[in-house]
Parts: sequence; structure tokens; C-alpha cells
Amino acid sequence: MGKCSCHPEQETSFMCMKHNKFLCEECLKCPDPNIHCKFRQSCPIWFIEKRGGKGIDDPSSAKAKEFTVMFQPGNKEVRVPEGATLLYAAQLGDVPLNASCNGKGSCGKCKLILESGVAKSENTPLLTPAEKGKNYVLACQTTVHGDIVARIPEETLEKKMKIAGMGKAATDKMRGLVTEITPMLTHFSLELSPPTLEDSISDMDRLLRGLSKSGCDVSRMSVGLPVLRELAAVMRGENWKVTASVVKKRFSSKIVGVAPGNGRPSSLGAAIDIGTTSIVVYLVDMTDGAVLAATSGHNSQAICGDDAINRIVCAEKDGVKKLSDMGLATINGLINEAIAGAEVERNRIDNVALSGNTTMIHLLLGIEPRHIRREPYIPSVSAFPVLKARSIGLKVNPEAAVFVMPAPAGYVGGDIVSGLIYTGFHREAPMTLFIDVGTNGEIVLGNKDWLMTAACSAGPAFEGGGVRWGMRAEEGAIEKITIDPKTLDPMISVVGDVPPRGICGSGMIDLISEMVRAGIIQQNGKFIRDMGHPRLTKDGDEPAYILAFAGDTSVDKDILFMESDVENIMRSKGAVYAGFKVLLAQAGMDFSMIDRMIITGGFGQYLDLDKAVSIGLLPDIDRGKFAYLGNSSIGGAYMALLSEACRKEAAEICNRMTYIDFSTNNRFMEEFTSAMFLPHTNLTEFPSVQIKYQ
Amino acid sequence: MGKCSCHPEQETSFMCMKHNKFLCEECLKCPDPNIHCKFRQSCPIWFIEKRGGKGIDDPSSAKAKEFTVMFQPGNKEVRVPEGATLLYAAQLGDVPLNASCNGKGSCGKCKLILESGVAKSENTPLLTPAEKGKNYVLACQTTVHGDIVARIPEETLEKKMKIAGMGKAATDKMRGLVTEITPMLTHFSLELSPPTLEDSISDMDRLLRGLSKSGCDVSRMSVGLPVLRELAAVMRGENWKVTASVVKKRFSSKIVGVAPGNGRPSSLGAAIDIGTTSIVVYLVDMTDGAVLAATSGHNSQAICGDDAINRIVCAEKDGVKKLSDMGLATINGLINEAIAGAEVERNRIDNVALSGNTTMIHLLLGIEPRHIRREPYIPSVSAFPVLKARSIGLKVNPEAAVFVMPAPAGYVGGDIVSGLIYTGFHREAPMTLFIDVGTNGEIVLGNKDWLMTAACSAGPAFEGGGVRWGMRAEEGAIEKITIDPKTLDPMISVVGDVPPRGICGSGMIDLISEMVRAGIIQQNGKFIRDMGHPRLTKDGDEPAYILAFAGDTSVDKDILFMESDVENIMRSKGAVYAGFKVLLAQAGMDFSMIDRMIITGGFGQYLDLDKAVSIGLLPDIDRGKFAYLGNSSIGGAYMALLSEACRKEAAEICNRMTYIDFSTNNRFMEEFTSAMFLPHTNLTEFPSVQIKYQ
Repeated sequence: MGKCSCHPEQETSFMCMKHNKFLCEECLKCPDPNIHCKFRQSCPIWFIEKRGGKGIDDPSSAKAKEFTVMFQPGNKEVRVPEGATLLYAAQLGDVPLNASCNGKGSCGKCKLILESGVAKSENTPLLTPAEKGKNYVLACQTTVHGDIVARIPEETLEKKMKIAGMGKAATDKMRGLVTEITPMLTHFSLELSPPTLEDSISDMDRLLRGLSKSGCDVSRMSVGLPVLRELAAVMRGENWKVTASVVKKRFSSKIVGVAPGNGRPSSLGAAIDIGTTSIVVYLVDMTDGAVLAATSGHNSQAICGDDAINRIVCAEKDGVKKLSDMGLATINGLINEAIAGAEVERNRIDNVALSGNTTMIHLLLGIEPRHIRREPYIPSVSAFPVLKARSIGLKVNPEAAVFVMPAPAGYVGGDIVSGLIYTGFHREAPMTLFIDVGTNGEIVLGNKDWLMTAACSAGPAFEGGGVRWGMRAEEGAIEKITIDPKTLDPMISVVGDVPPRGICGSGMIDLISEMVRAGIIQQNGKFIRDMGHPRLTKDGDEPAYILAFAGDTSVDKDILFMESDVENIMRSKGAVYAGFKVLLAQAGMDFSMIDRMIITGGFGQYLDLDKAVSIGLLPDIDRGKFAYLGNSSIGGAYMALLSEACRKEAAEICNRMTYIDFSTNNRFMEEFTSAMFLPHTNLTEFPSVQIKYQ
Repeated sequence: MGKCSCHPEQETSFMCMKHNKFLCEECLKCPDPNIHCKFRQSCPIWFIEKRGGKGIDDPSSAKAKEFTVMFQPGNKEVRVPEGATLLYAAQLGDVPLNASCNGKGSCGKCKLILESGVAKSENTPLLTPAEKGKNYVLACQTTVHGDIVARIPEETLEKKMKIAGMGKAATDKMRGLVTEITPMLTHFSLELSPPTLEDSISDMDRLLRGLSKSGCDVSRMSVGLPVLRELAAVMRGENWKVTASVVKKRFSSKIVGVAPGNGRPSSLGAAIDIGTTSIVVYLVDMTDGAVLAATSGHNSQAICGDDAINRIVCAEKDGVKKLSDMGLATINGLINEAIAGAEVERNRIDNVALSGNTTMIHLLLGIEPRHIRREPYIPSVSAFPVLKARSIGLKVNPEAAVFVMPAPAGYVGGDIVSGLIYTGFHREAPMTLFIDVGTNGEIVLGNKDWLMTAACSAGPAFEGGGVRWGMRAEEGAIEKITIDPKTLDPMISVVGDVPPRGICGSGMIDLISEMVRAGIIQQNGKFIRDMGHPRLTKDGDEPAYILAFAGDTSVDKDILFMESDVENIMRSKGAVYAGFKVLLAQAGMDFSMIDRMIITGGFGQYLDLDKAVSIGLLPDIDRGKFAYLGNSSIGGAYMALLSEACRKEAAEICNRMTYIDFSTNNRFMEEFTSAMFLPHTNLTEFPSVQIKYQ
């Protein structure tokens, strides 16, 4: 008998044979993979032995039972103890399940089809009777009690998504923005004169003299012991031809490596945008700025939740390292793809620029993020040192210099600073409103004279979270919709021109706009009841619009748009619009004083401006003032990768920005409430919008 | 059968069972511990198995024999294979044997008395018949062929030596030289204001703000990932009270640690002088500069040879790490003694300053030294970065900042720069000739306007090397001698007032001066034959003067002073004097233009100026111009430990010094030849010296 590792107040006779730790029965059978995390982290596969105590009468029960879960497609097998959830099994086996709510049972996204085996599933309203009839379960609500085969339904499998702004035109535009290439890490090929009695300076001084002659600023140069220790041999190894690798940091430079000879191939760089949802890697030739490969994929942290808050919760439970490793796995995978595609050596990548929101960067670097989600929302770090790739686990040249975009605040991160560098409006006179809508909405207002910024919790609706058939702008996502006001039938456009399997953000905006126009929903977002139309149905008590009938989809189910979906989207658009209003008010301004409005982020790619205005997401200003500039975070990372001026600019932007916190702002709450209508309670703000409802 | 690890051309059937490596029979039995060093380093105790091949007929011969050597006093047991030398056994067991020539069999210092066992000893002229009769052997010339008990004779045992200039007066004088205490590593105790929504800067920015308010310059502050990762928890651990440790480097500052709370005890520092012969450690209170403890001991590298050249040879054979470890062992032992004596915590030592000649510093830091001993005599490094104690193996606070005195040249090291900082003549107008005589002689000429420096290979004679009964200025060393010209009997003064066991440098100078005065030797150093006196004897064919009869010594043997000893000392003094002359000539000067002459180093402590002039070691100038300033290297290290101004001054001194190489200087060779007389071939240079010989 001993005390449970999780619940010290609990005496238990179960013991992990591997770790010599006790675990109580509750822990052992607990279906929630996020409890007892510390123990499970160190021992993902349990070897449990029941020692002594009253339960030891049957020797065969001395070990906790373990079962195999096989995931299809892919034949991935995972061993888990009896009582573990299928979501836990998926996490253990790196099976990419969508689990927006991180196992709370509230998002209904982690659907699996049980093909065989013994499982115990909690009843959930998030599965339809039809789904239940087909053995659909929620992975987080289902525990393992025998060997199981589970299939991931097509709508649950995460697929390669379209990444905004990755075409040749976009990268050509980026190259044009960089006037001078000044990497952090530079290799200097030197041919030194051999020492003589008349010229008998030390090897190190000879190296510095050679560097100086080659145009390297050696006035603030440091060097570490490992380089000094091997210097004599290296310098004589190829008859005084050496290649010195110098990293220019913020306040000094450092010789990070010296190698014999002069034959080193040219440098490559990686610009990396770490989004909460997706990660983008650009592989760049550091000599001319050419983008040799661009790869993108889902941030595999998504299994711990859709948004930054859930990721922090997960890091608090399971440790920051787990999240860091997940993010790294995705990044290193994308780097692998990129170097395979471009057919280059990994070790040639010796400059890296990272851009991402504050939480993503904290998690990736293994820095404590927990205070970002608690008032007063404090990040550990805003400005980051130039790091070594090795120290953070990036699979490139271990000595590579890593620049991390600085972050002005906990909810306005380096991705926004990156966006400014890329769009450049902070250098110009026109008054600009900048918005990046992702799982959060970050707003910047200002011009070359001043900058204000704020974040509004738009929520994940536009990225598919909290919307029954919501999904990201991937293949199979309905992204454009018009509804015939007479027949109420929709015309849809699907990403990839395939049968639909869900609705992405731009589709939702179109849909709400059209539903208002067609008189299906009212200004308050409620369905107009009893229209007596086959597309107007109910799920339980909740009204819904059938956007696609089962036969027309790739998922063999009606794709519904629920009244609660409308409400969630209204919350998101309301928060964004309220954010605009309050930030303008802080500056004593209104929309009429805005010269241009820049929209960035993947969300904006398919956006219909008129429809976004018509639901009250965007202000009703001259459409010619709007500009969509794609993934500005990767754009800024690319520029910072290449240019020291841009890296310095990043720090300046951070210092210039005034951050306004909305979390306890009464005015924001008022504006939010006013914006919870379609388009708005104050219709005079939307003169161009024609409201039609019964 | 396989290829020998040392001689790949050799096929062998002997194999090390531990390392799976082959070793040929020659290697296996080789009596020289310095051959096959790589293999022996990784496998000091051999487990040899003879595999296959023709020698396998007798199974009992399958393993190389191993024997135990027990050293007395101390009962130290060492296992070595048959054929290893006793010197190798001593090195293996860290038994402190004096082995000036590093196993060449030429210095005759590594005497042992065989008490039991089977050994094979080469015949050597360096042992007297009487010694041979008492079972004396030279450890390096004796191989092990059975279990052995060997006793270290008293004259071989190294003893605590007197360290010059370590009294209270000396340290008080040092304290007076430092006007402002500015450590490299400083702990800042901060009470930070907790964050609020209105004051929501990141933890790191809050820390920097707090540091700035406390007077710390944060304009060029960097910080590493480990500190950032723990920052959030540390800052909240003691309710926003934190202690930040900041290291001021040459070009930037770095936060090397942050700890919760404000209760850290005050800082200590260690100033360390790493001499070829002896190492001195001062433990210093960084708040007021008080010297809390001073310890000194022999550099345990001495087992690899007396001078820097032999140490480099040893490092080339056995690897730099071996020498580094030996030096560290001595330093860490002295630190232990100091902290035990002062009753303080090791971790409070967070500033360290190291001073030493170029070779000692290279060896200690593990930097390749081999090119220092080969024309054109190039050190790897002259100016060293601020290091972390952990990275070089010092047993103090692992994060302690380590300053290393920069070195102008391969043979003019940081110890000389340290000497200038301490004596301060480079800041003043009087024209000064500075000499530090140790195992080498370094000379600096100049004043506040210019500085020239050179090294002359004085050789180890003044430290006891190459002189039959030579020893360091330790207990038992004859350090003052006068000879009655009538009786030819000497009056001697012995360090520690004990029976003598050898002669130290100042004793040798006295002795030669007195032997000339008494007409025992001529101006060319040769003995005047046939004086028919009991003290004038011969060893073989070589004339000798009996300085002490066996009964009056602690070693029960006549202490002789040989003709060859005189010659060796004349070489040393000639090199030093020639150095003075050539350096002055380079500057277009002569001795009359010298305003003062500073002598430093332990050697000068017992020096009789008139006698040193009379043998032609020092120039015949006004005795009032001479000043002896003790161990100036530790003095400068102490000042650099405390004062940033002194650390900066060190770099300036290095830049100001013009190094003159004597190794191919014809004029130096001419002056050296002229100086190979007592006092000099040109007596007009020594008007005050009265020569008397038959």
C-alpha cells in the first residue's frame, strides 16, 4: 500500500512497476487523459501492479488490463490501460484528431466510428441519432474496455489546408520589399596570411584581422570557449584558409563557428509563421531572397484545443514541454518537406525567423505561458534574444541564429508586429485600421505618427470552432454561398471543387448575409419559424437550415446551419466590430477618419466584403479603402529573416504600440451588446445595408 | 588479430577487453608512460587479452600481467601493467613526484627508494653509488615487473613553499590601490511592483525596469533561454521580490540568473595566479576588498615538467585536458582550503580573476598550446572572453564570471600585464625596466608613453631546475650564503630554520658571488683546481664545492655545488642581462637612462642586490633605483577582480606593448655570449664589482 501519486490523500495498492509509484484506482481508470498528467507524462504506457491490500485475492488481477486501439485509416496501433479514453489513445499515438475543446465533450469534433471492440461511451447530444446508428462516438467521451478498432470519419480527418498568399506573385512581392540582405549569421571565407616572427599575433587576433578586412564589424565581437579551443587546429587545417560563422546579435556579434577551408555552400534561411491553427515554413535562399519551397500544415498542438487559452490550460496540466514538442514536431516536419522539395542540405539553413502570437511563441520556446490567460494577462517575455537553433530543438544547422519576432502584449503578438513590417502602414501617413482575424482578432490603429493596438476575443467561430459544421478553409469547405430568395435554395462554391463536408468562415458570413436577405433569419439572428420549407428543419428543438442534403455531400449527412451557429458567429463579428469602435473612440476618432483598412490572415482570403459589411463584421465605409494582404505574419517573418533593418524595425514597432486592454472595458461591453444584431442595433452606421426580414 | 591502436601498421593479437581495441606488444610493455597516451588516457588500467594468433599456446598468458605499486608515505596503491614505469604509476595515482624533465631521465629529480618488489632499472649517472646502495632509483627509468613498494625520499617530496608577498601589509597595500569596486557579476535585490491591467508589461520588461531603477545599465542587456523559461515562476515565488545576477561583459551585459527573494549573502571573489611552479589563490570579500584567505601550492602539472615547454610537450602527447585537469585540481584544492579557512560558502564566490603566463592559461582553459613552442611561437588566443566558472571546471558558483588576464605574446603573458596593473609604472613618467624572473624571464621597458616587452629563456635554474641540489624557495632551502675567504667555510641561512636539503635561486646567486670573492671559481665559472681543501671535491671528473656536509643536512648527503651548476646559472643570468641590453638598444637607450628597476616574482624575495649585480644578473646601477614588489601577478589579478577600470586597463596594456622576439635576434646572441662571464666580459659595465680570482 502507498499514497497515490496524484491524490496523496488516497491509499492504494496499485503500483507502476516501471516508476515504482502508486496510483489509485480512480486515477487508473480515469477516462480523462488530462488528469494525472504528470504521472502519465512520465509513463504514457502504464505497467501497473496491484501490491498487497485487500484486492490481491485473485493473482491474475494483479496487473491493470491493457488493450490495443487500432486507428483507421493507417493501421496505427496504441496500447492503453482499461478505462483510458479514445482521445487519450489518439494523443498517445499522434493520431491527428480534431479536438477543439480539448476533451471537454463540448465541441463534438472528435468523432470516431467504432468498427469493433468493447467501449463505454457517454451519451452526448452532439451526435445525431443517425450518427449513433452508424456507431459514431466522441473520442473524448468513450473509454476503452477491450481491443478496439476505430475509424476516423472523413469529416474528422484533418486535411492539408489552403494557405493564403503562398503563390509566386506573393513571394515575388515579398522579395521586392527587401532592399538589402543582411542575415544574422554570415559565413566569411577568409584566406589568412600565415604567421611569421614579424607578424606573430595570436590565432584569434589573426582571425579577427581577416574578418575585419572582409568587411565584418569586429568592434563588438565575442567568441566562446569551444571555438577558441579548436581554433589553432582549424586555422592550420587548410593552410590558413578558414570559414568563420558570425552571428550579429542586438548588442554584439559572436563567432559561433570556425571551419577549415573555404568551400562552404551558400546559406539558406527559414521563415516560420506559427499560427494557433496552422504553421507555414518558407525556405529561402539567403543570397537573393528567392523562396525555394513553401510548406504548411496544421499545428499538431490542435489536439489540445483550438485556441491559445486551451493550449495554455493543456500546458498547465501536462507541462509546457509537451506543447513545445508538438509544435516542434510540426515545424520540423514542414522543414523536412521543404528541404526535400528543394533538394538542399538541412545544415545549410543557418538563419531562422519565427513569427507567432505570444502564446505560441512561449509554448514553442518552453517559456511559462500560464499568466497570459489570467488577469492582468502578463506574458513572461516580450523581446527575445537571438537564439541558437539547437537550444530550441529546430532541426536545421544546430548553430543557426533564430530571430523571434517581439510581442507587444499577451494578446497582441509577434505575428501582428510581423504584419506591420510586411504591410508597412506604420511608416506612412494614411490613417489605417489593421485587422487580423484568426482564432483571435487583433486590431491596430494608427500611422507613422502613432500606433494603438487591442485584441478582441472573436472566438474560433470563423475558423470553424463552435459551429456544428464549421471547418477551416480547406478542401471540401463551402466558402461562397448565395441563396435564391424565392426558392431558398443555395448556390455554393466549395474549396477544391469537391462535394462539401463543412462551412468555412467566409461561407458562414455569406450564409448569414444571405439568410437575412432571404428572410430566413431576423436581425437578432433568430430563425423565422414555420416557413414550411424542406430546407428549414429542426435538430431537437433547435431550428436549422439545410445547406446541403446528405446525398450532395462527401459525408453522407445533411450539412446544417443551426440557430446556435448564427449566435456564435454574431458574437465573433460583434466582438470585432466593438473592437474597432472602442479603439477608434480611444483615439477620439470614428470610421470616417480611416483612410484605409487592411485585412490579413487566412480568413480574409475568400471574404466577400459587401456581405461582411452586411452582417456588421466590417464597417460600412468606401469599399475601395479595404485591402486584403494575405498571410502578413509569414511576410514579416520573411523580411526579418533577410533584413537587419526589419529586425530592428520590429523592436521599434513594439515600443511605439500603445496596448489597450478590453477585458474590463465597460465601453467595449456596451459596443459588443449593440453589435449583437445583424448588422447592428444602430442601423445608421450601416447606410448601405438593406435589411430584409419578415 | 587486429591493428594496434597506436601503430596501425602493426598487427597484434592483444586486445583491451574493456575498449575492444588492439594494442601491440611493444605498446603493452612500453616503459615510457608518454607513448600510446591516447589509449592509456582512455584506459589507464588495462584489461588486456591476447586473442588468437601464434602467442596463444599458453592460456595463462592470455592476459598481460598487472602489478600493484604502493607509494610510501601514504599507502597509495596503483595498479599498472608489467613494464610500466614507476613515474607512470605515480602520475596515474596523483602521487606528487618532482619530475622536471618529464620522464626524459635527464633531471634526476624523480628519485624513489625501492623497499620491496621486482623492478628493472636503467643505469644512470644521476644517482651516486651511495644512493644506489640504498636502493635509490629514478622513477622514470624503472619499470615494474612485480608488486612494488616504493618510498618517496624526503628530498623528493614536494613541500609547501613560502609564497612571496602574502602578508597583511601586502594585501592592505593592494586594497589601497583599488578606488572603486565594480565586479563583473553583481546581484541586484529588487522589490518589483506587481503587474496590473494598467501596468501589464511582460515579466522580463518588469525585471529590466527594476534593474534600471536599481542603477543597473540595461541598455545592452541580454538574457538566455534558461532564465526566460523560469522567469514567471521565480518572479511570483516571493511576491515580486527577486534577486537578479548580472554579468557585465566587454560589450554587453547578461542576466545569468534570477532567484526568488532578496536574502542572498554578499559576494565573494577569487583572484588566482597560475604560475608554472606555484599557484596562489586570494579569497576576497567583494564588498570591501578584504582578503579573507590566501592559499598557495605547487602546480600539480609539475609532474609533467618544470617549464612551460615541457608542459606543452606533455599536452601534445597526453592531450591538453590532462594538463587542464591537473591545474584545476590544484586550483580547486586551494579554493577548498581558502573557503574552509574563511568558513564561507563556496557558492558565494561569483567573481574570479585569473592571471598566468600564456601557456598556463591555454592549458587551464583547454586551448591548444602547441604552436607557442614552435617558431613563430603563436598562441591561440591573446584576449579572452568573460567565461563561466562552470565551463572551465572551477569549483565555485557555477555561474561565476571569470576574467582572464589578456596576454600580449606567447612568452609574455597575462601575468606580466597583471604585474603592470599592480606596479602601475605604465601610468607614470619615470623610465622603468621591469623584470619578472620565474622559469622564464619577462622584461618590460617603458613608461606612460610607450612600452616594449620581450622574453628571454632564463631557464629553470633559479627555480632549482638543472642544478644538482637546486630547489624552490621552500622550507629547507639554503637562501643566503657568505663564504669566509680564509677558511672557505660557508655561513648559510635556511628557509624555515631547519637543516638544509637544497639551494634556492637567491642562495645560488649568493654562492656564486661568494665563490668568486673567495677565489674558488674564476670569472669564466670554472673551478680553480687543486686548492687542497676538504670542501673542494669532485664528483667523477667534475669539480664541486661542498656547501653542507651530510651530517648537517636533513637528507644525510653532502649538498654539492657543481661546476655544471655554475654554468647553468651563468646561462640564466646571461640571458636575463642580454635581454636588458637588447631591449634597451631597441629603444636607443642604455642603463643610465633608467629611472627605476622593478623586480617581481617569488625569486626576488630573498635576493641580495649587491650579489645579484656582482654576478652580472642585474645591471650595476644606483641600488636606490631597485624596487622589489613581490608577486605582482596575484596583485594585478586581485585588482582586476575588483575593478572594471583595471580590467579595461589590461586590454589597453596589451595593445600598447610592442613585443620584441629574441629567438632569432643576432644581437641577443652576441650579448648573451658577452654575459657568459662573472659578471661580464666587459668589466666597465660593472664598475662597483671587485673581481678576485687567482
